[in-house]
Amino acid sequence: MAALGLVTFLSDFGWSGGYVAACEAAVMRVSRDLRVAHIDHTVPAGDVAAGALVLARVAPLYPEAVHLAVVDPGVGTSRRPLAVAATRGDFLVGPDNGLLLSAAEALGGVRTVWELDVTALRSSAGLPPEDVSSTFHGRDVFSPAAALLATGADPGALGRPVEIPSLCRLPSASARSSELGVAAAVIEVDRFGNAGLGLKFADLPGRDAYGAAFVVEAGDGDALTRRARVVRTYGDLTVGELGLVCDSWGHVALTLNGASAAEFLGLKPGVTVRLTLVKEDVDGR
Amino acid sequence: MAALGLVTFLSDFGWSGGYVAACEAAVMRVSRDLRVAHIDHTVPAGDVAAGALVLARVAPLYPEAVHLAVVDPGVGTSRRPLAVAATRGDFLVGPDNGLLLSAAEALGGVRTVWELDVTALRSSAGLPPEDVSSTFHGRDVFSPAAALLATGADPGALGRPVEIPSLCRLPSASARSSELGVAAAVIEVDRFGNAGLGLKFADLPGRDAYGAAFVVEAGDGDALTRRARVVRTYGDLTVGELGLVCDSWGHVALTLNGASAAEFLGLKPGVTVRLTLVKEDVDGR
Amino acid sequence: MAALGLVTFLSDFGWSGGYVAACEAAVMRVSRDLRVAHIDHTVPAGDVAAGALVLARVAPLYPEAVHLAVVDPGVGTSRRPLAVAATRGDFLVGPDNGLLLSAAEALGGVRTVWELDVTALRSSAGLPPEDVSSTFHGRDVFSPAAALLATGADPGALGRPVEIPSLCRLPSASARSSELGVAAAVIEVDRFGNAGLGLKFADLPGRDAYGAAFVVEAGDGDALTRRARVVRTYGDLTVGELGLVCDSWGHVALTLNGASAAEFLGLKPGVTVRLTLVKEDVDGR
Repeated sequence: MAALGLVTFLSDFGWSGGYVAACEAAVMRVSRDLRVAHIDHTVPAGDVAAGALVLARVAPLYPEAVHLAVVDPGVGTSRRPLAVAATRGDFLVGPDNGLLLSAAEALGGVRTVWELDVTALRSSAGLPPEDVSSTFHGRDVFSPAAALLATGADPGALGRPVEIPSLCRLPSASARSSELGVAAAVIEVDRFGNAGLGLKFADLPGRDAYGAAFVVEAGDGDALTRRARVVRTYGDLTVGELGLVCDSWGHVALTLNGASAAEFLGLKPGVTVRLTLVKEDVDGR
Repeated sequence: MAALGLVTFLSDFGWSGGYVAACEAAVMRVSRDLRVAHIDHTVPAGDVAAGALVLARVAPLYPEAVHLAVVDPGVGTSRRPLAVAATRGDFLVGPDNGLLLSAAEALGGVRTVWELDVTALRSSAGLPPEDVSSTFHGRDVFSPAAALLATGADPGALGRPVEIPSLCRLPSASARSSELGVAAAVIEVDRFGNAGLGLKFADLPGRDAYGAAFVVEAGDGDALTRRARVVRTYGDLTVGELGLVCDSWGHVALTLNGASAAEFLGLKPGVTVRLTLVKEDVDGR
Repeated sequence: MAALGLVTFLSDFGWSGGYVAACEAAVMRVSRDLRVAHIDHTVPAGDVAAGALVLARVAPLYPEAVHLAVVDPGVGTSRRPLAVAATRGDFLVGPDNGLLLSAAEALGGVRTVWELDVTALRSSAGLPPEDVSSTFHGRDVFSPAAALLATGADPGALGRPVEIPSLCRLPSASARSSELGVAAAVIEVDRFGNAGLGLKFADLPGRDAYGAAFVVEAGDGDALTRRARVVRTYGDLTVGELGLVCDSWGHVALTLNGASAAEFLGLKPGVTVRLTLVKEDVDGR
């Protein structure tokens, strides 16, 4: 098998304390020639869905690689350590908790899955097979496995195949639509305060989204109500104006020119936002 | 053109959410052999002047490279995407909003500037020419352009030359001096609470700066007033003593041994500090 | 001397302002072929002991390398700049303030130490010998020295040998034990709120640690008192239950399933925790 040579890495370890570095070191112990590219290590602690979202967005942008992903609240329990071969030619390595599957789909789909055999892979990596912590499989299991795959190792020698339907999957956060409106959850707040929704821009109601306006209801009960115009980019809004844009990942995002839309509306991941089309505005501008 | 092989990268994207990684991935999609070095991704959101300052300080320390810089509040509007050739042999790639020019001057000056042609460069990079977001030109425009230049591509094939005087420039934050005093703005607060001023250490009043003392007035109105001694390094101050040092970039910085000078004096970027020489102290120590 | 080719890097510079990048650039100026791996740059400002702890844990996980470490509150004073050769074949470069020695011991022990000669090493690196700041030896002294060593330079040409007993050492934070109990200081709080103690798991009292329970007293005076069960991993605790685990570095850590043990108990580095064995629980589970 050709060596991919590249390991991308996502985790919830944060940049402090050397946890990310310990994994990068474990990769380099397998081969000094491997390259490690960091996707994100600030995933909220234990938030598998948040990690899966970023992984699925970014992994396909790289050339073929081994994608190492560790958001693993079940570390040391019986949850299975996995290697997944995706159709595009990439591998994904991480725990069987749903973290890897959206990314695998974004890479063309799951082709084969192996449950990693810790003893076998550590032996292959020249590590003491039994010297495995209960709390840091990122360093002790997943990183050596990813490194071996990136050097072209046969995944069949690192574990045994498992049935795809047996894999743990995350519930999907689908939007609920009607002709004039749609309700979707916030899935991301970026550094600029833009609130990305679990709603593809193409699924926004209205014949021609640009120029349309929506009433925005955020949160429950006596919800804050605002009107937002659909624009192409932040700079198309007047200062202080609320807008809806197609964000960097093809989703609808709420944005506020010159300030944080998320702070203004009290949004954070998981909060439901309802958008109702104000029809007259479609032609009115 | 020889391949520089190295892309440095500065942005205001923050380390969360995979935005930095998406750009790094876009570089590696052009060529797996390119190396990406991260200058800073924690520039305050949209603060072009802060990004320009860090870029101008750090870019010249690298060997010749392509310096990719994205602090771009006008993304998706008509502001021009640029590639700048600097006299030392480096390229700079980013928006035409003043971000690149101080660094270009620190690299020997601007030699040639091109307005990037998005369709042409995406075709050269093997990307769908029309598939460009309105909100993430870092990934869709600037990263592929920087990568192509780093592989030795002809910049003339990626855009058309523009007149240097037409470039957007930032206002310069110059200090105002008299014989005994000087007023300058805080341009940086570092992690240790040192407050760097927009004033070169060589321009500090007094025949021989070391040993001199200044009265420090910070902020407006009933300003807090303190006395500071000019010393060579932090350790030359007694604990709790306020000092002025030549900082790591040749500028005057206010420092407090054992604590944050910025917090003590209520300083942040943009605040004006007045320094008045206390003459007798020049010979008095 | 064979070229190690790899420089690892730990500091308290933080990721903002380009300070880490300035050092990485200085390494690459010596040779574009060198690789820099970042261990941690979020060490609390000036906290030499915290930096030493992370360095000693992570440096040995890499293949042989030059380990550049800069937590240097005495920068610009007379503290000596050092290069340390460790028995495993690694070098460590940094200030003589205790930062390097635990890591050197973890790498098999100190073999030889040199006090760096700033003029000599800067000349070797092709840098102006006199152009050294008083505040940023990371960029001006330590990075070029580390880079030269990583290219295979003779350390004897960069400085003069110093006696090992003359090196500055940190006080050791040893645990105090009796048959049934032990007192140890918190040495780390990780991102998940686990509080690592300065106590090896193997030194926990009791014949067989797993299944035992301890009374936990944290802080001074009217200390908060809690009971904690010794388990293999986080997932073995019920939600909200306090536990003791063998952490990723072989130390005892206090953990709380689903929340931050450190926040719950008011723990931070330096706080003393007393653990008293509750004997009956050893056989009771």
